[in-house]
Amino acid sequence: MDSLRREAQSDAGLEVDDLLETWRLLDIEERLEAFMDLPRDQAEDFFLELSAREEYELIHAMPAGQRRSWMRLLPPDDAADVVQESEDSEREELLGLLDDPTRREVRALLAYAEDDAGGLMNPRYARVRPDVSVDEAISYLRRQARATLESVYYIYAVEADQRLAGVVSFRDLFSAAPGKTIRDLMVTDLVTARDDTDQEELGRMFAQHDLQAIPVVDGEGHMKGIVTVDDIVDVIQEEATEDIQKIGGTEALAAPYLETGFTSLLSKRVLWLAVLFLGEMITASAMGRFEDELGRALVLGLFIPLIISSGGNSGSQASTLVIRAMALGEVTLGDWWRVVRREVMQGLIMGLLLGVLGFARIEIWQQLFHTYGEHSLLIATTVGLSVMGVVTFGTVSGSMLPFLLRRVGLDPASASAPFVATLVDVMGIVLYFSVASLVLRGTLL
Amino acid sequence: MDSLRREAQSDAGLEVDDLLETWRLLDIEERLEAFMDLPRDQAEDFFLELSAREEYELIHAMPAGQRRSWMRLLPPDDAADVVQESEDSEREELLGLLDDPTRREVRALLAYAEDDAGGLMNPRYARVRPDVSVDEAISYLRRQARATLESVYYIYAVEADQRLAGVVSFRDLFSAAPGKTIRDLMVTDLVTARDDTDQEELGRMFAQHDLQAIPVVDGEGHMKGIVTVDDIVDVIQEEATEDIQKIGGTEALAAPYLETGFTSLLSKRVLWLAVLFLGEMITASAMGRFEDELGRALVLGLFIPLIISSGGNSGSQASTLVIRAMALGEVTLGDWWRVVRREVMQGLIMGLLLGVLGFARIEIWQQLFHTYGEHSLLIATTVGLSVMGVVTFGTVSGSMLPFLLRRVGLDPASASAPFVATLVDVMGIVLYFSVASLVLRGTLL
Repeated sequence: MDSLRREAQSDAGLEVDDLLETWRLLDIEERLEAFMDLPRDQAEDFFLELSAREEYELIHAMPAGQRRSWMRLLPPDDAADVVQESEDSEREELLGLLDDPTRREVRALLAYAEDDAGGLMNPRYARVRPDVSVDEAISYLRRQARATLESVYYIYAVEADQRLAGVVSFRDLFSAAPGKTIRDLMVTDLVTARDDTDQEELGRMFAQHDLQAIPVVDGEGHMKGIVTVDDIVDVIQEEATEDIQKIGGTEALAAPYLETGFTSLLSKRVLWLAVLFLGEMITASAMGRFEDELGRALVLGLFIPLIISSGGNSGSQASTLVIRAMALGEVTLGDWWRVVRREVMQGLIMGLLLGVLGFARIEIWQQLFHTYGEHSLLIATTVGLSVMGVVTFGTVSGSMLPFLLRRVGLDPASASAPFVATLVDVMGIVLYFSVASLVLRGTLL
Repeated sequence: MDSLRREAQSDAGLEVDDLLETWRLLDIEERLEAFMDLPRDQAEDFFLELSAREEYELIHAMPAGQRRSWMRLLPPDDAADVVQESEDSEREELLGLLDDPTRREVRALLAYAEDDAGGLMNPRYARVRPDVSVDEAISYLRRQARATLESVYYIYAVEADQRLAGVVSFRDLFSAAPGKTIRDLMVTDLVTARDDTDQEELGRMFAQHDLQAIPVVDGEGHMKGIVTVDDIVDVIQEEATEDIQKIGGTEALAAPYLETGFTSLLSKRVLWLAVLFLGEMITASAMGRFEDELGRALVLGLFIPLIISSGGNSGSQASTLVIRAMALGEVTLGDWWRVVRREVMQGLIMGLLLGVLGFARIEIWQQLFHTYGEHSLLIATTVGLSVMGVVTFGTVSGSMLPFLLRRVGLDPASASAPFVATLVDVMGIVLYFSVASLVLRGTLL
């Protein structure tokens, strides 16, 4: 019997997951209809699996009379996320659906920026006074557990004035002698976040310290709530996705790729492409200055794509490495000198290797097919030296631009790519024709 | 008194963190010396904060007689990570330092691939038989807590044959009537991982279900261990870092940027740069076929960088979007047709807009500076049409290549960039000169 019941339940569980996938392909009216067709308990499990955006859209779409029980199903931090997703004009109505104490908590959460610890934290956590005994604490927590707690992994010892005094893990509380006090057990060497700590920093704190939850305190050390690691997993995924999309030359998407509307996707891509395009137009002007040289030595034109792309590739490689190291907190502004020394050497060596490759390619083709005429050695020298210069320049400027951008308060991830691309392309052309006019003077030029 | 003691402890705690930062700048001998100078309790806290690599290096560097207590300080999953970092020849020696039961657990963990759930899981978790009462379970757990548990967030109900029957959260156990059984309380609709589930998939499971821990079972449903979300935070950061570095055209680094050795960093960068460089050499051959056209209409040369970079930018934008969506599980192989329809339209519209921009730029310059001579309108048409074509081609091929690469079993993140770049650059040149020969025939060509 029992195992049959379990199997039935387990099947239902699998259905919810499968359902979620097909459900996400529907438009909002179909979504609501399918949702309302579910048995209540399954619908509740389903609802709690959704993103804040999807929860909001369902609530927004359903008849007003049915909204309350769904809003009240959510813990305060999730309810606040749903309210964040709503239009300003709907906020008060949604808040009105909550019970009074929860509404107060949600309002307090809404006062924080969405990306800060204050906006991510849950105001319900396991708290005791430092001077109660282990047995008292356990029986107190047994009474409080269902009503108030999201996470019972840590118990926070909070003084009468709401200052955070220490933390006891559940494991320690559980295994301690019954008569000891919380103060005897608690760890006071705490990792805490401020309510204005941003979520990227929070992600780093969790990754570094391997904690299940981090308490959030205000400037005076008063306990405000906790951020749990399961909420941070989403945040870390999101932050990485944003950086990847920005590095790829898109504004960060607000929703998954397939769920982003066509025009919304278009507007987030076309803007950066247009900025890059306008930047690259400078290359046409730069080339214009060398039209005479090009006319006298047409062969130079053949290698322009190679020169340009070598600079662009080395630049985007270096800037990506530095941007990610900055996002992980591995490299800070103060490290710029260490990075520049390293990148000058890396750039020179890579430039040398690619330069030799370029030189060899031209000479080998010349031997095989006599492609480049009597001055092939000089052409190969021009290309080799230019590649070396442009790779070095690309590497160094690619690694330094994220520092400059962060220094002036811009996001290195979103602005580095276009700057590096334009800078390196224009420099590449100028360098190439300058080297050519030195090497080929008196022969081709 | 008490508050003084707390403050002193808290200061010591801050020192450990500060110490960690400066300590990481030292070489290994200096590191060991500084570490050995710490008071024992502080050294232990410090040791547990380190990465597996750093823990291994310390243990490797210290006199053999001191290694045992440090290896034994580690929980089994972390001890396994340290053994993973060691040379093959040292493995048995390190394993010999552990006590017998832990060694068996660590050996079992080492049999799994490092990136699979089996390699990440902890074999110690809170387990009870399904038929014990709530009160029995609580007092049992109180006895077991310190010795065996890493995480007590969930209690796993395991049948006598080791099959996982269900899960009770600590909160539910705690707030339940004392006489109920675990079977009454347990949830049987479980999210479980297989021991060979890979870590990227685990990360998605945690992000989707907001769980604190996921149980790991073998093919017969036998409980093997748990993976906790705090271990997954590192994994998600690592996976994202790998993808970002690959998209940026580097092999994934094994250590933070500043800690990666100079030659190791160089080798991970130069290889892809060289592959890209060799690919781009094809552009020189492609251009070679149009040398005559270029000689007759030198003005065409001015826009080569613009054409090439427009294709490259739109291609890398599209491939980055698709690669990230694939990594997050938002897009699967079966979605290729939806993606291609979407990207054809996106590419056409973006191409149209950039083409108009290019056309306008040339005509405006012509009006202002008479830069492009009597056929400026035809030149502007050539550039506009080519930009439109190359942006559409770049967008579509950039979005489809990750599908192709994954289909044949390659990692889309590491291989898309060079393929897209070469493909789009060569196509861009061919397209540009083909359009030119149509539009400019009888005038410039």
